Amino acid sequence: MSKLEETIEALKFGPDGLIPAVIVDADSRAVLMVAYMDASALLETVRSGKTHFWSRSRQKRWLKGESSGHTQEVRAIYTDCDQDTIVIEAVQNVAACHHGYFSCFYRKLNDKGQWDVVAEKVFDPDKTYGRGS
Amino acid sequence: MSKLEETIEALKFGPDGLIPAVIVDADSRAVLMVAYMDASALLETVRSGKTHFWSRSRQKRWLKGESSGHTQEVRAIYTDCDQDTIVIEAVQNVAACHHGYFSCFYRKLNDKGQWDVVAEKVFDPDKTYGRGS
Repeated sequence: MSKLEETIEALKFGPDGLIPAVIVDADSRAVLMVAYMDASALLETVRSGKTHFWSRSRQKRWLKGESSGHTQEVRAIYTDCDQDTIVIEAVQNVAACHHGYFSCFYRKLNDKGQWDVVAEKVFDPDKTYGRGS
Repeated sequence: MSKLEETIEALKFGPDGLIPAVIVDADSRAVLMVAYMDASALLETVRSGKTHFWSRSRQKRWLKGESSGHTQEVRAIYTDCDQDTIVIEAVQNVAACHHGYFSCFYRKLNDKGQWDVVAEKVFDPDKTYGRGS
């Protein structure tokens, strides 16, 4: 086992074998998304330099951007005091959110206790993912 | 039920009734910590303007800074496309990490596959938490 594999195995994965990963834009430092990694997704992220995650809904590993081309190029990887969370600084190609926004966190709580959309779409999801006309 | 309570109830909490919350420093945008909230912790966070979390180890709600005084003053709350994660921009008093660092993410992965400490301590945990001499 390599030193990298040892370091990854020493992280505190949850009972489902997953660890949350916060992806931050390397330039603006905006939080782009939060997704989950198993040990193999994190290993592949380090080795390839592109973020890979474990899809809880599809129960498979996926390369971010595998269908859209909107990959994330890893610049730095951090862990926290408890070693149960990862932060990754990455250069985002086009946008992180499959709804067309640069960040998945495009809704902000307002004074009335409701969500306001506070970002503009940067691509058309229907065209990118081949839905619609 | 208030509109705020309805909005909170509509979030996708996990099977444990918790949602991950990423706390970001409102000035530097550094990711400070990731912790978990139940609906009551999020409601109290909005109402009080200070972050509250659910401790999975102690199985109770806690005010961040209740023993250290290192509270977080909420500036904005966001949710993502899936509504299963929260991002909170906050003004951090002193530091977020109980190990003495401003951010809990003070370790960075190096080329050898090991963690380097890349931050300086900003307070002495032994003095703040009353341990030691």
